[in-house]
Amino acid sequence: MSHKDLKDELKEVNQFEISDNTDIVELINSLKDTGFNAKRLAFACEIYKEMIKNEDCIKFFGLAGALIPAGFQKIIYDFIHEGFIDVLVTTGANLTHDLAEALGYRHLQGDFQVGDQDDKILHREELNRIYDVIMPNKVYEGIEDFVSKLIIPDNQLPVSSFLKFLGSELPKSSHSILRVCYDRDIPIFCPAFTDCGLAMQLGFHHQNLNLNQFKDMLKMVNIAWDAKVAGICIVGGGVPKNFIMQSLQFCPNSATYAIQITMDRPEPGGLSGATLKEAISWGKLNESVKFSTIISDATIALPLLLWFLKKTKKLI
Amino acid sequence: MSHKDLKDELKEVNQFEISDNTDIVELINSLKDTGFNAKRLAFACEIYKEMIKNEDCIKFFGLAGALIPAGFQKIIYDFIHEGFIDVLVTTGANLTHDLAEALGYRHLQGDFQVGDQDDKILHREELNRIYDVIMPNKVYEGIEDFVSKLIIPDNQLPVSSFLKFLGSELPKSSHSILRVCYDRDIPIFCPAFTDCGLAMQLGFHHQNLNLNQFKDMLKMVNIAWDAKVAGICIVGGGVPKNFIMQSLQFCPNSATYAIQITMDRPEPGGLSGATLKEAISWGKLNESVKFSTIISDATIALPLLLWFLKKTKKLI
Amino acid sequence: MSHKDLKDELKEVNQFEISDNTDIVELINSLKDTGFNAKRLAFACEIYKEMIKNEDCIKFFGLAGALIPAGFQKIIYDFIHEGFIDVLVTTGANLTHDLAEALGYRHLQGDFQVGDQDDKILHREELNRIYDVIMPNKVYEGIEDFVSKLIIPDNQLPVSSFLKFLGSELPKSSHSILRVCYDRDIPIFCPAFTDCGLAMQLGFHHQNLNLNQFKDMLKMVNIAWDAKVAGICIVGGGVPKNFIMQSLQFCPNSATYAIQITMDRPEPGGLSGATLKEAISWGKLNESVKFSTIISDATIALPLLLWFLKKTKKLI
Amino acid sequence: MSHKDLKDELKEVNQFEISDNTDIVELINSLKDTGFNAKRLAFACEIYKEMIKNEDCIKFFGLAGALIPAGFQKIIYDFIHEGFIDVLVTTGANLTHDLAEALGYRHLQGDFQVGDQDDKILHREELNRIYDVIMPNKVYEGIEDFVSKLIIPDNQLPVSSFLKFLGSELPKSSHSILRVCYDRDIPIFCPAFTDCGLAMQLGFHHQNLNLNQFKDMLKMVNIAWDAKVAGICIVGGGVPKNFIMQSLQFCPNSATYAIQITMDRPEPGGLSGATLKEAISWGKLNESVKFSTIISDATIALPLLLWFLKKTKKLI
Repeated sequence: MSHKDLKDELKEVNQFEISDNTDIVELINSLKDTGFNAKRLAFACEIYKEMIKNEDCIKFFGLAGALIPAGFQKIIYDFIHEGFIDVLVTTGANLTHDLAEALGYRHLQGDFQVGDQDDKILHREELNRIYDVIMPNKVYEGIEDFVSKLIIPDNQLPVSSFLKFLGSELPKSSHSILRVCYDRDIPIFCPAFTDCGLAMQLGFHHQNLNLNQFKDMLKMVNIAWDAKVAGICIVGGGVPKNFIMQSLQFCPNSATYAIQITMDRPEPGGLSGATLKEAISWGKLNESVKFSTIISDATIALPLLLWFLKKTKKLI
Repeated sequence: MSHKDLKDELKEVNQFEISDNTDIVELINSLKDTGFNAKRLAFACEIYKEMIKNEDCIKFFGLAGALIPAGFQKIIYDFIHEGFIDVLVTTGANLTHDLAEALGYRHLQGDFQVGDQDDKILHREELNRIYDVIMPNKVYEGIEDFVSKLIIPDNQLPVSSFLKFLGSELPKSSHSILRVCYDRDIPIFCPAFTDCGLAMQLGFHHQNLNLNQFKDMLKMVNIAWDAKVAGICIVGGGVPKNFIMQSLQFCPNSATYAIQITMDRPEPGGLSGATLKEAISWGKLNESVKFSTIISDATIALPLLLWFLKKTKKLI
Repeated sequence: MSHKDLKDELKEVNQFEISDNTDIVELINSLKDTGFNAKRLAFACEIYKEMIKNEDCIKFFGLAGALIPAGFQKIIYDFIHEGFIDVLVTTGANLTHDLAEALGYRHLQGDFQVGDQDDKILHREELNRIYDVIMPNKVYEGIEDFVSKLIIPDNQLPVSSFLKFLGSELPKSSHSILRVCYDRDIPIFCPAFTDCGLAMQLGFHHQNLNLNQFKDMLKMVNIAWDAKVAGICIVGGGVPKNFIMQSLQFCPNSATYAIQITMDRPEPGGLSGATLKEAISWGKLNESVKFSTIISDATIALPLLLWFLKKTKKLI
Repeated sequence: MSHKDLKDELKEVNQFEISDNTDIVELINSLKDTGFNAKRLAFACEIYKEMIKNEDCIKFFGLAGALIPAGFQKIIYDFIHEGFIDVLVTTGANLTHDLAEALGYRHLQGDFQVGDQDDKILHREELNRIYDVIMPNKVYEGIEDFVSKLIIPDNQLPVSSFLKFLGSELPKSSHSILRVCYDRDIPIFCPAFTDCGLAMQLGFHHQNLNLNQFKDMLKMVNIAWDAKVAGICIVGGGVPKNFIMQSLQFCPNSATYAIQITMDRPEPGGLSGATLKEAISWGKLNESVKFSTIISDATIALPLLLWFLKKTKKLI
C-alpha cells in the first residue's frame, strides 16, 4: 500500500458534541467516528441493529454472571420481549435470581460507597452479599417451597425443556425471564445448571431427577446447524460464551455478527476475555464477520445498547 | 446493630426499565437504586450535580491520558464552557493534541476491529498510532512551526501562566481547551509538562526557557487552601490525580465531593487505581465526603456524565 | 483504639533483598512482610502450607479456563500427585486438552510477540488459536476416534464416575490429570461438562448417554458436609469457583482456608472476581478464615505456589 | 504460506515441570516454550539478559508508582548496583519514599486481608494509607527537616543534577536509590518532580527554586541520540514510560530491546497500557525490536526478573 493510499483511506476522527437535542441514537451515531471504547460501543449498537434487520439471522445471546440482583431483570426481559434474542444461554445464577423476583422476593441494596460491609455481621443477619447487593437468605426458603411442590412431567427432560416448563408455572404478570421465554417460545440453555441454588433445591427435593444436558447440547448444535445467518451477543463470557461458540463450529456459515461486552482481558488465555477475532481461527465466526468487543461493565453498556435498539427500531 | 434494623434500613434494588420516553436524566436517576457500576455512574452524576449547585465549591478536574485523539475535545471544552470546571490539571499529551486540532490538524481513525494495524507500515507512512487512532507525523511539523514563532513574554513563567498565554494565541473560533480556559480564566496545571511533544518543540526552539513548576505547585496549594468547599473529578488517574490530591492536603476542609472514572484497579498499589476512600486517611478527602468511582473507560462514562449535567442544569 | 496502640501494633515493611543463596522458600518468606500482590502471594503460599499440614483438611481445588494448552499439565498433575488436592473441580476444556495430550497429541506455540496471528490463515490451516497457543483441529479427530470406541459401563453415571472411568482408560505413563486422579482416587467434578469438545464427541457417538449431574451435585454437597476442616484454592473463578462455593454452604464449619488466583476484579459483580471476604456473608467461608487473593495470571503464580509447596514440604 | 509450512514451523508447547533441583534460571528457561504470561515473563528475562550482554546497549528503566512503600527499595537498589540500569526515570513518589527510608523512617504494614482499614481512624492517627501499607505522617516532618537545611548550590539546576546532589547528601550505608545512583553516576530523571511530597517541602522552604526541567528534557534527548543501542524496561507506565518513549524518537536506531510490566490494558487508549508494538509506528522501537509485555503486578514479576538476572549473570 502506498503512502498516499493509506492516508487517504483513513477517515478523520469526529470531535463530537452533545447538544440540547442529543438523543441516544444521535449520540451512538456520533461515536462511530471516534476511538477507544466509545467507538466499540457504537459499532456494537450498529451490528446488533443489523442483526435485527436481517430476518434470516438467529440471534444468540450469552448472559453470564448474575445481573438480576443488580436490577437488570426488566432489561433482559425487554431484549426478549422486543424480539432481540432468539436463543438465550445463561447461568443458573441468573435463573435463580429471576425466579426469586418472579416469586415476589426482592434483592436489597448494600453499601455502595464502601463495598465492604462487615460480612460477619451480614452473615449473622442471614444476608448474602453480591458485591453491593444483598440477597436475604430467606429467599432460598421461598425457592425451596416453590421447587418442592413442582410436579415435573419427566425426570429426564433436557434442561431447556425443563426451564420452559418452569416458565409456564410463573405468573404471566411478572417480568420474569423464564416466563417471557416461555411466552415467546425462546429456548433457554443452561449448561452448568447444577451450579446454582435453584438446581440444588431441585436435587434435594426430586431425587430421581436427571435432566439431560446432552440433549441440550445436541439441540443447540442443531439450531446452529440450521441457522442461515448467525449473530451473537456475549455479555460477560463464562460458560454461556463457550457454549454458544462451540455450537457455532457446526453452523455452515459460522457467525456473521458478533458483539461482546466484558471486563476480562485476553492475555491470561481464558475464553471469557478472548478476542472475538480469535474465534475466526476456529471457524466459530466467519472470515467477513462484523464484530465489536466493548470493554465495559455490562451494567453500563447493556442499558445503552437496549436504549439504542428500542429507539432505532422505530426508525427502521 | 440488630437483625431487624439492618434489614429494615436496606432499600430494595430497582428493577428499572427503559421506556419510549426515557431520557438521560431519568435513566441515571433510575440507576441510583441498582448495583455494580451502573449505580456508581448514577451516584457520580448526582455528586457532580451537587458540586455545581454548591456555589462555594471549587471544582478540580484531573484529566489523564490523551482523550482528544479519540474525539473528546468538544466534550472537555463543554465541561469548561458550561462552568463545570474551575481548575484543570492535565497531561502534556492532552495539550499537544488540543493544540494540533486548534491549528487545524486532524486525527485519523485507525483500524478499529483489529487494533493491530501493521505498525511497521504505519511507521514508514509516518503515521503514529494511539490504539485505534492515528496522528500523522506532519502534525508535529505544524506544532513546531507555531511554537518556533511564539514570542514568549517571560522565560520563567509558571506553566499555568504560559498555557494561558498559549490559549490567547489560538483562534477564538476553535473548540480548543487551551483557548476556552483562557477565555474563561480557568487555570490549567500540567505538572509533567516537559513530558510531551509541545514542550519538546518549546525546548528545541526556546533554549532559555525555564518555566517555573514550583510556582505552579504553590499556586495550586493556595487554590486548595482558599477553597471553602472542594470537589474533584478524576478522569483516569496519573499525575493529574496525584497533583490534585497532594494539594487537597492543604485544603482546610479537604474535599467534600469526589468522582473518579478509571479502568485501573487498587491492588497493585498505584495511585491511579487507588480507591477514593484511601484518600480519607491522608486528609485529602474529608470524613463525610460523598464519593463514587466508576470502573469504566472514560470514553463511555464521560459523555454520559456531561449529557446528564447539561440536561439537569436546565432543571435546576 | 488509641493512637499509640494502632501504631505500635503495625509491623514495619521488610525492605527485602535477593541474594546469591535465595531459594523459593526464603523469597516467599521475605515477601510476607511487604505489600501489594507480593504479600498476597506469600500469604497464599503460607495458607496452602497450613492446609497441607492440617490432616483434617479437605483441599478443594477449582481450576477454570484451559491451562493445559499453555503447558501446565504437569503442574496440575504434580499438585495431585503430591497430595495437595483432595477434590478437583474443573472445566470441560481442561479435561479435553488433558485427554489430547494423554493420547499423544501436542499443543503448538503461536505467535507470542504479536498475539494477533492472522486468524483467517490459521482457519484455513485448521489451526485453532487459544491466545498464543495453537491446537491443530486434527486433535479433535483423535479424540473422536478414542471416544467413539469407549464402552461406557452405564449411561447414567455421575460425571465424576464417568471421568474416573475415563482416567482408567488412559496410559499410566502419561502425565494426565484424568489418569492421576484415577490412580489417586481423587474425584473430578465438571459441572458444565457438556460445554466442551470431549462431551460433544461423547454426545455424537453415544446417543443414549445421560450422565447424572444432579448426583455429582449431591456427592459434592456430601463431601463438604463431611469435611471437618475445609480449604479451597480457586484458580481463575468461573463455574469451578461457584460449584465449590455453593457446596461449602453445607460444610458445618464452612471453609477455614481460602486462596484465589485471578485477574478478574470485584466491581462488575461477577463471582469470578468477587472477593473471598464476600463469601463470609454467605457462610461459605467461616468468620476466622485465613484467606488471600492473588491478582495475577495463574501461569505466573501457580508455578511459584507449587515450587514453594514442594520445597517446603520437605522441611516440614 | 502453505499449510505445511506454518504447521512445521510451530514449536510444541513444553509441558514443563518443577523438580527438586529447579532453580530460577531453569524455571524461566522452561517457561519460554509455554504460553500466556508465563511465556511473556520468560521472554522478558531473556531480553533483559541480552541487554546486559550487549555492551553498547544503554538500558533505560522507567519506574512508576511507589514501590518503595511495599518493600522494593533494595530490589531497585540492586538493579542499579548490579549495573542493570543506565538511566532511571521515575516518579517523585518513589524518590520521596526512598528519601524517607534513607533518613531512617520506616513504612508500616497495614491490613492485608481486608484492604479496607477504617480510613477515618487512620486519618485521626495520622497514618497515611497506600493500599495495604501505611506511611506515618511524621515521616513528612523528617523530610521537611532535612529539606529545610539543604544548601542547594544552584536554584536553576536541572532536576537530574539536583537529584544527584541530593544523593550525595545521603548516608552511603543506606540502600537508597538516590545514593546509589550518585555513587554509580546513574542519572535520575523525574519529569513530574513537583508532583510529590519532597518537592512540596522544597517549594515551601526554598522559594527561589526553579529547577530546570527543560534542560532535563534536552539531556535525555541527547542520551537517546547518542545511544548506539537502546533497551528499555518499563515498570507500570505513567510519565516515566512516556518520557523514555518520547526521547527514543531521537535515538538513531530506536530501541532494540523493550520490556514492560504492567496491569493496565491497551483498549482505553492510555499510554500506560499501550502495547509495545504500537511504539514501532512512532519510531520509538525499531522494526526488529525484541519485546515482551508481562501483564502482572510488578511486585511479583520484578523480584523474579532480578533473581534471574543475578543468577544468570554469573553463568555468562
